[in-house]
Amino acid sequence: MRRRPPLSSVTTTGTVLRDGAFGHATGLVCRECGATQELGPHYACAECFGPLEIAYDFPAVTREQIEAGPANIWRYKALLPVPADIETSPNTEPGFTRLLKADNLGRELGITNLWVKDDSTNPTNSFKDRVVACALSAAVEFGSKVFACPSTGNLANAVAAAGARAGIKTVVFIPSNLETPKQVNSAIFTESLVAVEGNYDDVNKLASEIAGEEDGWAFVNVNVRPFYAEGSKTLGYEIAEQLGWRLPDQIVIPVASGSQLTKVDKAFQELIKLGLVEDKPYKVFGAQAEGCGPVATAFKAGVDAIRPVKPDTIAKSLAIGNPADGIYVLDITRRTGGAVEEVTDEEIRAGIVLLARTEGIFTETAGGTTLAVTKKLVESGLLDPELETVVINTGHGLKTLDAISDQVGPAATIAPTYEAFAAAGII
Amino acid sequence: MRRRPPLSSVTTTGTVLRDGAFGHATGLVCRECGATQELGPHYACAECFGPLEIAYDFPAVTREQIEAGPANIWRYKALLPVPADIETSPNTEPGFTRLLKADNLGRELGITNLWVKDDSTNPTNSFKDRVVACALSAAVEFGSKVFACPSTGNLANAVAAAGARAGIKTVVFIPSNLETPKQVNSAIFTESLVAVEGNYDDVNKLASEIAGEEDGWAFVNVNVRPFYAEGSKTLGYEIAEQLGWRLPDQIVIPVASGSQLTKVDKAFQELIKLGLVEDKPYKVFGAQAEGCGPVATAFKAGVDAIRPVKPDTIAKSLAIGNPADGIYVLDITRRTGGAVEEVTDEEIRAGIVLLARTEGIFTETAGGTTLAVTKKLVESGLLDPELETVVINTGHGLKTLDAISDQVGPAATIAPTYEAFAAAGII
Repeated sequence: MRRRPPLSSVTTTGTVLRDGAFGHATGLVCRECGATQELGPHYACAECFGPLEIAYDFPAVTREQIEAGPANIWRYKALLPVPADIETSPNTEPGFTRLLKADNLGRELGITNLWVKDDSTNPTNSFKDRVVACALSAAVEFGSKVFACPSTGNLANAVAAAGARAGIKTVVFIPSNLETPKQVNSAIFTESLVAVEGNYDDVNKLASEIAGEEDGWAFVNVNVRPFYAEGSKTLGYEIAEQLGWRLPDQIVIPVASGSQLTKVDKAFQELIKLGLVEDKPYKVFGAQAEGCGPVATAFKAGVDAIRPVKPDTIAKSLAIGNPADGIYVLDITRRTGGAVEEVTDEEIRAGIVLLARTEGIFTETAGGTTLAVTKKLVESGLLDPELETVVINTGHGLKTLDAISDQVGPAATIAPTYEAFAAAGII
Repeated sequence: MRRRPPLSSVTTTGTVLRDGAFGHATGLVCRECGATQELGPHYACAECFGPLEIAYDFPAVTREQIEAGPANIWRYKALLPVPADIETSPNTEPGFTRLLKADNLGRELGITNLWVKDDSTNPTNSFKDRVVACALSAAVEFGSKVFACPSTGNLANAVAAAGARAGIKTVVFIPSNLETPKQVNSAIFTESLVAVEGNYDDVNKLASEIAGEEDGWAFVNVNVRPFYAEGSKTLGYEIAEQLGWRLPDQIVIPVASGSQLTKVDKAFQELIKLGLVEDKPYKVFGAQAEGCGPVATAFKAGVDAIRPVKPDTIAKSLAIGNPADGIYVLDITRRTGGAVEEVTDEEIRAGIVLLARTEGIFTETAGGTTLAVTKKLVESGLLDPELETVVINTGHGLKTLDAISDQVGPAATIAPTYEAFAAAGII
């Protein structure tokens, strides 16, 4: 494993970080006021408390260099805040998941040229493995002694697994009323799963408190969030590379905090600037559930302010009532000529079955949401069915079995004889 | 999709199969008497009823040709019974899964140079996606109208998903007492899940009967089994390529029917013959559960005959009491200086937790079996801890949650306050 410098010597004014600890990243820049600060475990602007983002000074990068890399996100290491020797540090090696041409689904939706980017085949079966891998690298470089998160699902799985593999202590905080199967999916990887009496907001608040009180804790989505969030860019890079170094015309992305959508757009912009793809227009669409659609509501109302909501939807991994990056989602979808749409739980369930029956992909409720929104966008004319379109599937249906258990089942129950089979009229 | 010739014209004496329908495969050869017959949907020797296997006339194949292929099993298409344009036919694109250097696990087991080949990240989360993809290609080339299998788990998922994506009618037969979550994992992909009143043996018998009575059905593990089985070779090819075109010294593989183990050995032999890897000794080890260890029993007794058993183990995907390829497993493990070992259900559960806690991989009971057997082989001295060793993980723990649900859980349940956290002594 890489040598870790002690965290105590990492400050905003002077660090002992090793050379190239964050690759070509040059600092943290505030997305609101533009103030910059040194790279460190910080997430809020020292000037205005705005969200911080990684700034880079990219070298020349060629398609050939990337294609010669490993079949995981580290093929894009030159564009991430990670060291050049990142592959030598134990990690889950996520990414480079399938981009499937979805002709069956396209026929059902009336879209002539449709692709599904399937992140359900990542190490812990969601896109979170990408962001957590980047957060882990930062935690290692900062010399963090604990790798942690508050979560109810995919993030908890990803953090616990990545920490186990890296040999770093993990602590994962969950609401104590979480169903047993979801507890097991994280507890299998860590001896320090902590059940908190309260809802997810309570768990989240406790995490922020601990991050403030304790030294050496890297909370992936709190104090190392700027590094973590960059991992979502790899979804955009992969889609472009897998299309043959070309941007799609349209892309549909689920919106929880909104981070993924903003980072895919950032990735596309970077690829254009680096000359790795041709500059062309593309439309970005956001997908939400009606039970938690604050960004869709703002988009449709034509306003800039997002009014927080109390989530009530089966799409639990999208249930963020006050999305941190919601305003950026509005900016991007409006700038590119896209939209943000929302669908009912019933439409989400139908979306899950539709994707499975047409393309053999079992998606979680978030993916069902994205599918259902895509269908709705075609019907309303906001999405052009003649343009090349990519839909992102962010996670696996095995994690949200409850949502769909009563929707599908055996077509028939028969006696174990050929006669019984023949009489059942199966085909 | 590829044009399908009608099945009715496919016979053992004359076919209208298109040129190159099966790549460089030349025929079917009996593993017992060596008699050959033409390529077709056959699985038993016309002379002696022995099992049939694909024979090839391989062209020169280079590492560079393979490396230029896609990041899935079709990079090895020249070595499989599939057409040269296989990528253009909709399929789940399985394979090229992670080979992880497992230093944490190695330290626990006392093995200095250990790797885990992780097939849990395949499209439906098991190695079955590999074999089913090859069976699907054969079914398409034979013009089959139904793609089917009897199964209780991984195979059912893989067949239903692959058939959906290919747009071919699927029918999946399961025992009617299968737990609801396992039913859902297949029913999500197919409208024709058939619950059969009986145990797995009854379901299997019914499948064979239907295969005999009906035209145009491709039962993946019955009448297209020779094509299906070849898919397991890709595990061997990938391991060699991912090690840098080199064979490991030792490999540990779970044994159900025994097909996977025999095909990995076949793959290694082919790579040597083709000059793609250096010829060197390697030891093959087989892993079984004590509740279904007929091959391990025969190995230890030093006999050639395998006495069928009635399975009783949590490793349901290994619970084949009369393994078809068991005698070949004995041949290979004895020829290479390996062994076949068996472990208890308790050791299997411990193996699952050990792999998750050390390497962040959540394996099913079959993987727990392989891990536990590896541990036992080191302890007994049959496996040399100084030699480079690969352990195969064939499937995902999300599918066998029940086996482990009472083994792991929260370390503490606390009130949502920093004080409660600090008092809990988590770290």
